[in-house]
Amino acid sequence: MTFHCVLYVGLEERSMAAVLRGSRYIVGRCCRNVDFASVSTRSMASKTQVGFVGLGNMGNPMAKNLLKHGYPVIATDVFPESCKELQELGAQIVDNPAEVADKADRIITMLPSSPNVIDVYTGPNGILKKVKKGSLLIDSSTIDPAVSKDMAAAAEKTGAVFMDAPVSGGVGAASSGKLTFMVGGAEEEFTAAKELLSCMGANVVYCGQVGTGQAAKICNNMLLAIGMIGTSETMNLGVRLGLDPKLLAKILNMSSGRCWSSDTYNPVPGVMEGVPSGNNYQGGFGTQLMAKDLGLAQNTATNTKTPVPLGSLAHQIYRMMCARGYANKDFSSVFQFLREEEGQ
Amino acid sequence: MTFHCVLYVGLEERSMAAVLRGSRYIVGRCCRNVDFASVSTRSMASKTQVGFVGLGNMGNPMAKNLLKHGYPVIATDVFPESCKELQELGAQIVDNPAEVADKADRIITMLPSSPNVIDVYTGPNGILKKVKKGSLLIDSSTIDPAVSKDMAAAAEKTGAVFMDAPVSGGVGAASSGKLTFMVGGAEEEFTAAKELLSCMGANVVYCGQVGTGQAAKICNNMLLAIGMIGTSETMNLGVRLGLDPKLLAKILNMSSGRCWSSDTYNPVPGVMEGVPSGNNYQGGFGTQLMAKDLGLAQNTATNTKTPVPLGSLAHQIYRMMCARGYANKDFSSVFQFLREEEGQ
Amino acid sequence: MTFHCVLYVGLEERSMAAVLRGSRYIVGRCCRNVDFASVSTRSMASKTQVGFVGLGNMGNPMAKNLLKHGYPVIATDVFPESCKELQELGAQIVDNPAEVADKADRIITMLPSSPNVIDVYTGPNGILKKVKKGSLLIDSSTIDPAVSKDMAAAAEKTGAVFMDAPVSGGVGAASSGKLTFMVGGAEEEFTAAKELLSCMGANVVYCGQVGTGQAAKICNNMLLAIGMIGTSETMNLGVRLGLDPKLLAKILNMSSGRCWSSDTYNPVPGVMEGVPSGNNYQGGFGTQLMAKDLGLAQNTATNTKTPVPLGSLAHQIYRMMCARGYANKDFSSVFQFLREEEGQ
Amino acid sequence: MTFHCVLYVGLEERSMAAVLRGSRYIVGRCCRNVDFASVSTRSMASKTQVGFVGLGNMGNPMAKNLLKHGYPVIATDVFPESCKELQELGAQIVDNPAEVADKADRIITMLPSSPNVIDVYTGPNGILKKVKKGSLLIDSSTIDPAVSKDMAAAAEKTGAVFMDAPVSGGVGAASSGKLTFMVGGAEEEFTAAKELLSCMGANVVYCGQVGTGQAAKICNNMLLAIGMIGTSETMNLGVRLGLDPKLLAKILNMSSGRCWSSDTYNPVPGVMEGVPSGNNYQGGFGTQLMAKDLGLAQNTATNTKTPVPLGSLAHQIYRMMCARGYANKDFSSVFQFLREEEGQ
Repeated sequence: MTFHCVLYVGLEERSMAAVLRGSRYIVGRCCRNVDFASVSTRSMASKTQVGFVGLGNMGNPMAKNLLKHGYPVIATDVFPESCKELQELGAQIVDNPAEVADKADRIITMLPSSPNVIDVYTGPNGILKKVKKGSLLIDSSTIDPAVSKDMAAAAEKTGAVFMDAPVSGGVGAASSGKLTFMVGGAEEEFTAAKELLSCMGANVVYCGQVGTGQAAKICNNMLLAIGMIGTSETMNLGVRLGLDPKLLAKILNMSSGRCWSSDTYNPVPGVMEGVPSGNNYQGGFGTQLMAKDLGLAQNTATNTKTPVPLGSLAHQIYRMMCARGYANKDFSSVFQFLREEEGQ
Repeated sequence: MTFHCVLYVGLEERSMAAVLRGSRYIVGRCCRNVDFASVSTRSMASKTQVGFVGLGNMGNPMAKNLLKHGYPVIATDVFPESCKELQELGAQIVDNPAEVADKADRIITMLPSSPNVIDVYTGPNGILKKVKKGSLLIDSSTIDPAVSKDMAAAAEKTGAVFMDAPVSGGVGAASSGKLTFMVGGAEEEFTAAKELLSCMGANVVYCGQVGTGQAAKICNNMLLAIGMIGTSETMNLGVRLGLDPKLLAKILNMSSGRCWSSDTYNPVPGVMEGVPSGNNYQGGFGTQLMAKDLGLAQNTATNTKTPVPLGSLAHQIYRMMCARGYANKDFSSVFQFLREEEGQ
Repeated sequence: MTFHCVLYVGLEERSMAAVLRGSRYIVGRCCRNVDFASVSTRSMASKTQVGFVGLGNMGNPMAKNLLKHGYPVIATDVFPESCKELQELGAQIVDNPAEVADKADRIITMLPSSPNVIDVYTGPNGILKKVKKGSLLIDSSTIDPAVSKDMAAAAEKTGAVFMDAPVSGGVGAASSGKLTFMVGGAEEEFTAAKELLSCMGANVVYCGQVGTGQAAKICNNMLLAIGMIGTSETMNLGVRLGLDPKLLAKILNMSSGRCWSSDTYNPVPGVMEGVPSGNNYQGGFGTQLMAKDLGLAQNTATNTKTPVPLGSLAHQIYRMMCARGYANKDFSSVFQFLREEEGQ
Repeated sequence: MTFHCVLYVGLEERSMAAVLRGSRYIVGRCCRNVDFASVSTRSMASKTQVGFVGLGNMGNPMAKNLLKHGYPVIATDVFPESCKELQELGAQIVDNPAEVADKADRIITMLPSSPNVIDVYTGPNGILKKVKKGSLLIDSSTIDPAVSKDMAAAAEKTGAVFMDAPVSGGVGAASSGKLTFMVGGAEEEFTAAKELLSCMGANVVYCGQVGTGQAAKICNNMLLAIGMIGTSETMNLGVRLGLDPKLLAKILNMSSGRCWSSDTYNPVPGVMEGVPSGNNYQGGFGTQLMAKDLGLAQNTATNTKTPVPLGSLAHQIYRMMCARGYANKDFSSVFQFLREEEGQ
């Protein structure tokens, strides 16, 4: 290890890694040795600056965890006030993504939606305006996989590497560094990505080519929504038919009806402890966010001409809930939405 | 205990139990001692004849398991040929349900649908025509819980006790005695029912008042159908988005999308072994049977004015599959139904 | 004609008709002459007493229209106060349906749901307890066609004829005698039924065998619900996309999107005058009633194994609306339900 | 007319109009006089060349109708063979859209989908590369209204005017010049657009700002799909309940279930003549095309967060049909899809 360091003295290590990685585009699948070198370099490089764009509810604790692991962080956000806390913790704050790219060759982005990602990467002050050749760009936003592919193609033109790495787990998991990252992109870059992502998450899963991280995230959340609504309907029906909700949950969980929403996050108040249904559906994963993810699932399904009848109806139900005042409640509040109002 | 036993010597034990149980209707909630006695009696009575009505694919192996456990069985079926095998194994075959009731005071029925149950209990040659006071009638058919309640009310008028005890698990579980029974009815009769049902099943779960066994069964299968269709849509979408199906299943199963259909009975050929998807959807639980159970779920939901949007759409999808040639395939073939036809 | 009349002089005409009709069961399809006679008789008989069971919001104005057309009415209702107004107008009020049947050989029933119909016909004080041979029993309730068939079979055993004749049109049409009747039953009885129904309705349509009146009603209302929800979704989407609602309605109505809900009963406030959407969805046809009819449609579809995916989802949407406070609003309020809440 | 011509001699008339139109951007709402002039100019200009891009099944007969009305046509298509027929009829064929824009200042485009439109307008050989200031660009493709808005914004930067004008009516209506055009864009340009569109259509409807033509088209087709599936379900259910299909159609059509699919394009073979259901669902409007339009509706609904539960399910049903071999049948074949297969 020391040996390698000596070798690269005088070079900005990460740039070396970038050069090496850059060569991959030429050597193609024969790059095993190069990658080995590049991996070595990265270990050395690991405490150089990491860029972070997007310091919202999720991005903020994620960036903090990078600081906690000893990485110098250089960050930006469209809302300057979002940057204060991180700045006090020692991060360097710059004006826009292009400046981040000017100073860091590993950058993580965490943004609300596809248009933001497009702007942060390809906009007038976007990352790609000043990105260094060989940089590693990791987008943890949950967006349309087609946009991830577009960003990867645009990045490739500048000699940078783009990976999609959306997360599962909410603000709590972001704070405690327990997120799950689903990563799409060139397999030989996965180790480099994992080094950073491991500071922020407990699981880092390689999913395949660019966009498959998003695909995995979207697929999981679509099935999650279906399972949650299904569990809510089922529990509601069972209670109306005279079953005790705890007993019904127990029966389902030992039978073929079992799912995460029935055994880990039951939507019926009183069945489980420590879940939003026990706290008037406060906290957790908001209905609005679920509706957004289901919109992505619907869009990818439409664009690939894939029938998703239940996923589609789940989307519509969460959409109706948003229109009826449930936008900020946990998505398990669909139980409440389907249940009869008091006094009826 | 011994004391009670002595008291009843010389009586046909089950009849005595029947007398005692009969008295329950008078003494109401003060019957604890009586029930205690009745339980003792039943232990003694346990190897007296057990009636069985309905020797189809499920009923036949169930009745065999009773024989295997040493119970004399007296049985009947509308199709005489269905009775032959059981007769050769030592069961007594009679002409109709009334005759079964004439000779046995514990009877199990296993029938295809509500009208059959109504006929077997209340028809001209039905059980209730000759049922003895105090008899225990256990219906393991999957039917509308409202019909179970009707049968229980009709049985009560004759002094008999009716319980619903539908099963989960298919023909294999029936043969190996590994069914799960979900039992609804008077709690003080549960021990007596369990004695018999344990010969045929690995789990016997008490669910509550009459009809709740059916309710639990219907609820489980509705959620199962939703989970299966949801898993199929999700796997299909993921594959179209470039994910490897085995990897996607693995990701879902470690995440919040996890459900029985994704981790135990995956509908995508090649993801798991030993499930119908690996065998061209032969065997397993037929689409037609799932459509029937979803029809029951829909009926109970309609009758109780409970919204079940996904359950309802799941019903419609299985109904469309039946109309398009999938009636006899395993219900996980919905993956195939949603997937694009070859050559498209 | 005259000839026949002479023949029957001195007989209570309707009874004679009843005898003749009774004979139909014997002579079968050779009864043309007899029916001809029977028609004559009925013309003569037309001002004999007509029974009426069920004086609710619909039944009350219907019975009044019979009085208005000169028919002596003998009526009953489970709520005695419902009978007062009709009594003051000259109707004879009796205690129960059996007494109505004792005194009138043409009876119309108008009841809320299947169980009421079953009770009024076959209950301990039901019509069939005292019905005269040859009586004509017309049920205008909206119920399951299978129940209509059961009632027809039960009536036939007593020598009476049962027809189903559900209505479309609400309280207003009932008051003004402008209902539409969809009639199912023996075709040779249709003329007799029409004579009475014409006093209460503007259209009397023969649909086929017993139960087809209900079938036509249910089918129409299912398609109506689908069209109404579809129109509401479409108008809402169009407005969000920048279209003026009146212009959009005009475009739809000259194009293939046209339907009754878009061109006659538009759900968007301000698009049309004189419809419930212009009056905060007061009046009209209540969401709860639509949910009931869709429940019937769902039940008949389930029982006949017919896929009705949109009808099924329409049912679920109206069911959710009932659970969220829309039960008593006009069914076009689905536009309001789908639209974003104020302040969102 | 001649008088005006003299006035403008020496000017390329359309350019003059363009100048005048260009001034609109400055004078804003005070441009009435200018518009009047511009209209005059257009009348004069009307027999100058009209560009046409996209000579598929629809574009080909549309362009022919322009020729028939005396307009010189300059056209292009990615498939050279598509141009032959038009060339023989006298049209000038050029290599790409940019060349069309180089020679004509009124251009109509008729393309399969959004990406084609983006390419034809903004691609390397796109219209906007050589478009003249003041040109009128009319896109009759059915695409996402958001793309129409993007194209309009891009055109505006070059000083050209873009309008969306999707059609309803199929190949037959295109041939006979009986299409309906739904037009979105600046109102003061509508007269100019109408002049050309009237050669190809019987109805030209102004819908509002850019994108509202698409919105109207999408809304209509979504409601059409809902009505068609609803009619198919309803007719199928009615027939199973014993109703004659012609009679049921008649009853629906005089009642509140009435819609275009029931009274003009009934999906049940034998109910009407001259519709695809009478011809094994050949011809008409293909299921695949309907699925495409529903995908657009779904996308716009998702992007505007509008709940469209039935529209969404209709999309899924047409998607499933495409996957099951119905892609090229008329969209009324959903009746066949929902109906039980023969031999079941």
